[in-house]
Amino acid sequence: MSQTSSTQIQLVRRPSGWPTHEDFRTVTVPYGDLEPGQVRVRNEFVSVDPYMRGRMNDSRSYVAPYALGETITGGAVGRVVESAADEVPVGAVVLHQHGWTDVIQADAGTFRVLADVPGVPLSVRLHILGMTGMTAYVGLTEIAGLKAGDTVFVSGAAGAVGTAAGQIAKLLGAKRVIGSAGSAEKVALLTEKYGYDAAFNYKDGDVRGQLAAAAPEGIDVFFDNVGGEHLEAALEAFNDGGRAALCGAISAYNATERPAGPDNMPNLITRGLTLRGFTLGHYLHLAPEFTERMTGWFAAGSIAYDETIVDGIEHTVDAFLDMMRGANTGKMLVRI
Amino acid sequence: MSQTSSTQIQLVRRPSGWPTHEDFRTVTVPYGDLEPGQVRVRNEFVSVDPYMRGRMNDSRSYVAPYALGETITGGAVGRVVESAADEVPVGAVVLHQHGWTDVIQADAGTFRVLADVPGVPLSVRLHILGMTGMTAYVGLTEIAGLKAGDTVFVSGAAGAVGTAAGQIAKLLGAKRVIGSAGSAEKVALLTEKYGYDAAFNYKDGDVRGQLAAAAPEGIDVFFDNVGGEHLEAALEAFNDGGRAALCGAISAYNATERPAGPDNMPNLITRGLTLRGFTLGHYLHLAPEFTERMTGWFAAGSIAYDETIVDGIEHTVDAFLDMMRGANTGKMLVRI
Repeated sequence: MSQTSSTQIQLVRRPSGWPTHEDFRTVTVPYGDLEPGQVRVRNEFVSVDPYMRGRMNDSRSYVAPYALGETITGGAVGRVVESAADEVPVGAVVLHQHGWTDVIQADAGTFRVLADVPGVPLSVRLHILGMTGMTAYVGLTEIAGLKAGDTVFVSGAAGAVGTAAGQIAKLLGAKRVIGSAGSAEKVALLTEKYGYDAAFNYKDGDVRGQLAAAAPEGIDVFFDNVGGEHLEAALEAFNDGGRAALCGAISAYNATERPAGPDNMPNLITRGLTLRGFTLGHYLHLAPEFTERMTGWFAAGSIAYDETIVDGIEHTVDAFLDMMRGANTGKMLVRI
Repeated sequence: MSQTSSTQIQLVRRPSGWPTHEDFRTVTVPYGDLEPGQVRVRNEFVSVDPYMRGRMNDSRSYVAPYALGETITGGAVGRVVESAADEVPVGAVVLHQHGWTDVIQADAGTFRVLADVPGVPLSVRLHILGMTGMTAYVGLTEIAGLKAGDTVFVSGAAGAVGTAAGQIAKLLGAKRVIGSAGSAEKVALLTEKYGYDAAFNYKDGDVRGQLAAAAPEGIDVFFDNVGGEHLEAALEAFNDGGRAALCGAISAYNATERPAGPDNMPNLITRGLTLRGFTLGHYLHLAPEFTERMTGWFAAGSIAYDETIVDGIEHTVDAFLDMMRGANTGKMLVRI
């Protein structure tokens, strides 16, 4: 048993528009000896994700807002360094939701012990084999009803969810997969590394025209991480019976005024389209199915991925803001 | 056998915005003796419907545009006055799609002979027991997945589809049904005759606020005939897991510029909402189920309805325009 201190990031003010450093504070939290049933975990990787922006607002959503003055919670993986709980021993690798801290001490029940999978780096449990990979899988299968032969469009395709979605779509039999991203480098990566058949840079403008050119026969499935213009473009490109899985709307997260919606909503009627929003929390029953399939694909070498790593818990806010601006390729992570 | 002439309404110019009389012409079409296999039908009621506005445009939709210089097709019921086809004898009551004409002569196969149902007026086959009733039924059940206990909101609730939808929702176990309409008289009718629990006049403005006041516990199902502000208001009022059946967007049909979409589309994600557009043509396999249930409800006296009747084929365009402006309560029909 020992005492230690941890460095934690807390929300102290609700951001208006783009968050700034003044909305957060870094605090040192001391931990005393473990209580019976507790463990102490040293994090190795901490996740920063788009959905966290929504939790910084005090508004109705699928998860409660972050409380001011408390440490920001979210996905992280680490190793147990002390234990007063037999079921979570020292050395165990654990996944948890304690979030933006280098060390966390809490009841053993709040940590999930991960079986060691040879050849799977720990960080991957926070994305391809974790929440972001499962988000891509559930969105394509359960929400959008992807069928073999479909043409699929993924917006924000170079992000953590988007890189997974394109590859999963192909593995599930999509005929053609089209992605959008925010730089020429990312666009190149989509076709060269991630199996996209076509890709374009949405910062070049005319998303509608670029999508139409990339999908001359229309699209059947849209996996949306961006919203706004991308959704409008998809509504224009949809074939009859098209289905959208709305996963994110990063274009709107930092808006201080509500952006206007698509001007072509009546296409939903004339083409028999379905738009369905989702968040993973309602689909956790699909975790065994996802894990089995994704582990198989991963082991077969069918899954590429990128990580954008920022070192040091003290740079977590920078990592979060960079991710919101699209500075990452693949999954943005903070390495402790 | 005999010769006759018919009065038919044709589209001669594609309307820009609101149609005008100059977009149509009335012609006299002579018919000679019947060919073998043909029948001659004298219409009793001709239908004018919102979807016809879409067919007047030369744009991609679920049905082909009306051809210029041809008679406008659509639902009608009439009686066979001459027959050269044994299976469709003189005196038979028929439903057909030959549209805006007082007399039609065509192959017997293009007419469906209706069994006489005691107590069911012929006109009802064009709405409650016909396409509009089935549209309401399919939208609530197959598209929106209505469950007992749901709170349902119907926009444009005093129209042909809306008056059916409110009653069907209650018969299927909805806890609370809320409707919007465009006049104080219609609003009163919704609660007094059609079983709506609450109703409001959308021409008073603030659709969002009026809906929120009428649905203090939120809505689970939205049956949309109007689009625009109504859809935006519903997205704000939806409970988690809410479902919309998008049936019509009459607010947009005569717009010359595309109206902006809802400013709150991200609610789809945070609340796990589904928006699904539909047109009846893809759900005709549900006709036997619909007919059985609706005939039962009708026979039990559970279904109220209104008709707004305009007399004379020469007034069909006026009837159509009045319907688009909301001058009708219940189903707008032309009586020949």
